[in-house]
Amino acid sequence: MMQVSETQWSTQEHEIAKAAFDKAYAREVDTLVRTVNQQASEINNIADLWRLHDFLSARRHTLDGKYDARESALIFVFSELVKEGWLNLAELEGLAPAKLSKIAALTRIM
Amino acid sequence: MMQVSETQWSTQEHEIAKAAFDKAYAREVDTLVRTVNQQASEINNIADLWRLHDFLSARRHTLDGKYDARESALIFVFSELVKEGWLNLAELEGLAPAKLSKIAALTRIM
Repeated sequence: MMQVSETQWSTQEHEIAKAAFDKAYAREVDTLVRTVNQQASEINNIADLWRLHDFLSARRHTLDGKYDARESALIFVFSELVKEGWLNLAELEGLAPAKLSKIAALTRIM
Repeated sequence: MMQVSETQWSTQEHEIAKAAFDKAYAREVDTLVRTVNQQASEINNIADLWRLHDFLSARRHTLDGKYDARESALIFVFSELVKEGWLNLAELEGLAPAKLSKIAALTRIM
């Protein structure tokens, strides 16, 4: 079993992680904002309105859970973000090779 | 005390009530749709997005509670709709004078 939660992070790795984390979050939020702008412009009736409400409820819940900045969660968070396309592995360069290979491996099996 | 809940409604009054009820609902929903179209076009960031979500949650809750079509609730519902401007008293013409005066009285004290 991979020792994901026991991995140590250096100060430099923390900085790389924070930058990557913030970048992915900004991208995902930006895409969501544009999606909502678009969806909302097409709302014509109450059913559309509540569909937007349901969509926002779901996205808010997902985002709140996904962007977990605790050190013990970062490997999993990054693999999910890479998997979903919000981040690419090259943007995590500078992390220890063991971390990068764990992230890459998780990305493939998730 | 006014005997609001024991008031009888004729078939004709039911038709008038239903038409007025539907008209007020359509107006309020139409205004809400236009408000959301407008608000959503001005969303630029995550705070704006969650503010829209909170707004929709609140409006959905309010609308679900307000449009209570049970006979026992109609006098109160109409007085609220008149008070808020979604309906005017003239649109309830044809209801028994006792109902109209109850609605008008409630509108003043609410």
